[in-house]
Amino acid sequence: MSAPEDEKAPLNLAETRERIDAIDRDIQRLIAERARWAQQVGKAKGPLKAAVDYYRPEREAQVLRMVIDRNAGGPLSNEEMVRLFREIMSACLAQQEPLKIGFLGPEGTFSQQAVLKHFGHSIKGLPLATIDEVFQEVAAGNADFGVVPIENSSEGTVHSSLDQFVTSPLKICGEIELRVHQHLLTRSANLDQIERVYSHPQSLGQCKAWLRANLPKAERIAVSSNAEAARRARNADDAAAIAGETAAHIYGLKVLAHQIEDRPDNTTRFFVIGREVFPPSGHDKTSLLMSVKDKPGALYELLTPFAAQGLSMTKIESRPARTGKWEYVFFVEVEGHIEDERMVRAVELAGKHAAQVKVLGSYPVALQ
Amino acid sequence: MSAPEDEKAPLNLAETRERIDAIDRDIQRLIAERARWAQQVGKAKGPLKAAVDYYRPEREAQVLRMVIDRNAGGPLSNEEMVRLFREIMSACLAQQEPLKIGFLGPEGTFSQQAVLKHFGHSIKGLPLATIDEVFQEVAAGNADFGVVPIENSSEGTVHSSLDQFVTSPLKICGEIELRVHQHLLTRSANLDQIERVYSHPQSLGQCKAWLRANLPKAERIAVSSNAEAARRARNADDAAAIAGETAAHIYGLKVLAHQIEDRPDNTTRFFVIGREVFPPSGHDKTSLLMSVKDKPGALYELLTPFAAQGLSMTKIESRPARTGKWEYVFFVEVEGHIEDERMVRAVELAGKHAAQVKVLGSYPVALQ
Repeated sequence: MSAPEDEKAPLNLAETRERIDAIDRDIQRLIAERARWAQQVGKAKGPLKAAVDYYRPEREAQVLRMVIDRNAGGPLSNEEMVRLFREIMSACLAQQEPLKIGFLGPEGTFSQQAVLKHFGHSIKGLPLATIDEVFQEVAAGNADFGVVPIENSSEGTVHSSLDQFVTSPLKICGEIELRVHQHLLTRSANLDQIERVYSHPQSLGQCKAWLRANLPKAERIAVSSNAEAARRARNADDAAAIAGETAAHIYGLKVLAHQIEDRPDNTTRFFVIGREVFPPSGHDKTSLLMSVKDKPGALYELLTPFAAQGLSMTKIESRPARTGKWEYVFFVEVEGHIEDERMVRAVELAGKHAAQVKVLGSYPVALQ
Repeated sequence: MSAPEDEKAPLNLAETRERIDAIDRDIQRLIAERARWAQQVGKAKGPLKAAVDYYRPEREAQVLRMVIDRNAGGPLSNEEMVRLFREIMSACLAQQEPLKIGFLGPEGTFSQQAVLKHFGHSIKGLPLATIDEVFQEVAAGNADFGVVPIENSSEGTVHSSLDQFVTSPLKICGEIELRVHQHLLTRSANLDQIERVYSHPQSLGQCKAWLRANLPKAERIAVSSNAEAARRARNADDAAAIAGETAAHIYGLKVLAHQIEDRPDNTTRFFVIGREVFPPSGHDKTSLLMSVKDKPGALYELLTPFAAQGLSMTKIESRPARTGKWEYVFFVEVEGHIEDERMVRAVELAGKHAAQVKVLGSYPVALQ
């Protein structure tokens, strides 16, 4: 089989299609072979079990990193090639019973997009009404994994997710990054008419600079969801909503301004939550929850062991602990896996200075 | 590369993963090669154009039929293997710009499921508010194709779709069949309490026998959508909704009875609509719209030419024409393609007996 650029004379349509048919035959034979080997992996692990017993996030991350390394020549983008391999793995994994993944519904949310981006389509998605329920259903075993939004690149942390980890026994087993675009939707034809802009507070925040520059006098009104914002904007000539493209179509609104998010790399980050911690993939992060004894310099002492071990911290965030006034817990993200020797030592040392150190999980760093 | 069953001694996990890595390398090389050949197909057709200029439904149907023929040995189901090839074709086609597909929204509807089943995920979906709009956006060129529900296996034709063809210049370029499951959702714990059942009329119809057997005394109340039904059932202990599983999760209802559709093969059929008729795929259907001159035996005369040519009719349905009282138009589906000689002759003959014969399109018969 030769690639098209090797050809001296261009082939006609029928010849080109014959080449493609031959390639398809080979692809299909290989996918079937891959599926049989995947069954072998299952058998090597003992009697037949549910998909969750075969699923190994660290292995998936390794496979996809190899896919990206090999994809240098194109012609498909890394994103498309990774997507196809996620689907192939998803199909191979679902041979017994598909993975059940809980997420913040309804269907069509960014959370659902994150689920499908990460797990492929051979899964059973469970749209749930609240982030709370996602934790509950995973803890109860009704879902194998859950996916919850954790922060937006412009707007910061989703506290309702983060706070769950204080009391939940669940572990973080993966992170997903999803590009998010916002648009200005309205039924009127020009910006001058807009007196009110509705949106979810996170979305209003993601478009602050654009609003200041383009609608400085318009009132900004926070509502419960972007869909609700679009619904309200539908009823008045002087109102607009900030929302995704889908909402424009559902509510019959025009997109008056495209991609108005302040940062072109506007991204929402999600955690995959499950009931166990998985082995290292070779490029991992660890999330820790620590609470500090109330004395001067306590936070500094807590972080010193990580710096001393050369482990770089990628995020730190304090939240009020619900246990007492003026007590705080810290969410810390460190590069490395909890099984790494240096991490073991740092956590041990930090434990001497902290009132509590809880390992929330170690997981492969997100692929773009 | 050998298949697992050829092995004498079972491999350990690491060895099995090495085999899978080698297979993945080959799959990826072949997908990239396929994408390059797909570009060649484009170039053979002239200067670079939009995806719609490369898309050939008859060719896709042929490729997928070959996939099913080759898949006899498993281990993946035909459905999964076809899905993977649809995604590979979808990615290859989207190298310039993805296809834009209009459908009856919002996101999460059965219509969206049909779009993704048929076109794969490397497309841009446009959820629209009405079936009318789907036709309009395709006619205006804002969408390359549209997907509209046309009939359900238990409940019959969706007349709002069919009626559009009387006046629309659009053509049918494909059909999609989608399995549909209905459940009884409620917040109460047992059937005895249920006095009212809400649902869309189509869904009530799909579960008639089950309702008669299990809830003979409950009132059946038709509402605009199954989502609306679930919303209403949420507020009372004596109410239930018939809807898909998704609605249960969104509205926090229990599934009291699973898969209550009367026919286990409950299927909804969709048409893909576009602006042109495509060449034969080798296994096609043709849809015709004919109106009859008002005289005794006219319908019989209309159908005779098709029978005479040995063309089997798969569907016939009469609808009142909006042009005059007691005038009817007939939607007829015949096996074969409009370019087939026998079809040409039959249509020509039918034209002599009919007031009008309009070819709505010829398209590949749906894969399961």
